[in-house]
Amino acid sequence: MLRTRFTDLIGCTVPIHQAGLGSLVNPKLAAAVANAGGQGMVSWNNMPPDVLTAQLAEARRQTQGIIGVNFLVPDLADARDYIAQCVDVAANRANVIDFFWAEPDAQLIERAHAGGTLVCWQVGSLAEAVAAANAGCDFIVVQGIESGGHVRGRVGLLALLDQTLETVDVPVLAAGGIGTGRALAAVLAAGADGARIGTRFVVAEEAEAHPTYVQALIAAEAEDTVYTGAFSVGWPDAPHRCLRSAIEEATAFEGDVVGERFAAHEQKRVPVHRFQSMTATQDTTG
Amino acid sequence: MLRTRFTDLIGCTVPIHQAGLGSLVNPKLAAAVANAGGQGMVSWNNMPPDVLTAQLAEARRQTQGIIGVNFLVPDLADARDYIAQCVDVAANRANVIDFFWAEPDAQLIERAHAGGTLVCWQVGSLAEAVAAANAGCDFIVVQGIESGGHVRGRVGLLALLDQTLETVDVPVLAAGGIGTGRALAAVLAAGADGARIGTRFVVAEEAEAHPTYVQALIAAEAEDTVYTGAFSVGWPDAPHRCLRSAIEEATAFEGDVVGERFAAHEQKRVPVHRFQSMTATQDTTG
Repeated sequence: MLRTRFTDLIGCTVPIHQAGLGSLVNPKLAAAVANAGGQGMVSWNNMPPDVLTAQLAEARRQTQGIIGVNFLVPDLADARDYIAQCVDVAANRANVIDFFWAEPDAQLIERAHAGGTLVCWQVGSLAEAVAAANAGCDFIVVQGIESGGHVRGRVGLLALLDQTLETVDVPVLAAGGIGTGRALAAVLAAGADGARIGTRFVVAEEAEAHPTYVQALIAAEAEDTVYTGAFSVGWPDAPHRCLRSAIEEATAFEGDVVGERFAAHEQKRVPVHRFQSMTATQDTTG
Repeated sequence: MLRTRFTDLIGCTVPIHQAGLGSLVNPKLAAAVANAGGQGMVSWNNMPPDVLTAQLAEARRQTQGIIGVNFLVPDLADARDYIAQCVDVAANRANVIDFFWAEPDAQLIERAHAGGTLVCWQVGSLAEAVAAANAGCDFIVVQGIESGGHVRGRVGLLALLDQTLETVDVPVLAAGGIGTGRALAAVLAAGADGARIGTRFVVAEEAEAHPTYVQALIAAEAEDTVYTGAFSVGWPDAPHRCLRSAIEEATAFEGDVVGERFAAHEQKRVPVHRFQSMTATQDTTG
């Protein structure tokens, strides 16, 4: 058992924290991670409160371990009241609420704390890390530019981790390109209190990723990924890292709608547009 | 004392290998690193054989420690015989010859071995690492995209290090963004046999960097660096990482010649052109 300030704080037996992963996670994956001693994660995905409640109940039926809820919030101004309402639902049922993308927000953190949960914020710079600590977060995740999915980090993980550990007092987790024991050992040796792991869990058999996507990820090396702004439909100005082949295929596609899939926030199947910021779930067709 | 396969192979007491650094190194810096237990490095810089001989003699007067010679060779076809002649000089006087940029070359490695020295090659991909091992290198340096100066790496250091350690049998050093104990601990924990450190030594008082450049480096954070092709005059198509402020100042400069400095390969002062691939040494004016 690897003890860190993170495991002591949150009650895990392994210093591994599952990333949000949007539509690619489900209660089954979160429970599997929690049952293995890490911190599992369910994603809000703009689900209505009753659906989020049901998802967390489903996770709880499968584990007594540590479960978080990821709130990916590109813009708080858009829907502050609705977000706060969903935070209330999560705070009563999860061990931690994890925010990402918007600037750290003391009001939301206080709201989550009032519901009885820990709070973390994933950040991409030292300035944001300091803001998150000052806003009241219990721990922080620093994201390097190596990360898959949406990337807030602009520099290599070790540089950002180093700066942050020298500056803030709360536990700091490291995120970005960590998919092996070697990389986990590296960030722990550098002083991180744990690792946030995303892409590696996308290929877990419990996850919601489409089998073709899983195969492509497993076949890929680091050089097959691209830091890009390509998939901007629905969420512009948000850099992300994806497989180069995804950009090539979207570029070659003629037409607007490439397929369809279930969307959690609408609770129905919706068309997926070319270069839209949506991942390939198991129920995706086209 | 940290023992690794690298320290056992080369005889250092510290798993730190100084990078080449072009005109910013001198025998004094190399000797200081070697006297501290690491592997110091003199750079060939296209110096004529007699000047290289004198530089190595000067380093040897200051240390009995482990000294290497860096051969930055953008294109072997250009000057294979001349390079081989200089390799002979270095091989008789240094503990290791370190090649960078060109594809690993078995003939040159054999030539260096025949002179009685160890050989390493800094590479930027797994394919190059395998080629270097197959060509006969005694150890390999893998360079992540975090690196300062000329950058062969295209992905984050930990990913490349991980792949390489799983694939080749010779010792592997890690290069790129390592300037603190935390980062050194990280790569050693990941399995690296040592670290190649460059920029951190540029700011050492023994180095040849201009004081204004040293101050700018010390003031800079990782976010102040840029991976770019901007300084392409004299060496096109060679990505490098430099301070953003250097690009801004060169962009704002009107005219062609920004100053002058001593050039080792010509053994005289030469003009420095706007966006030329030359660093600011202590004797640089303009």
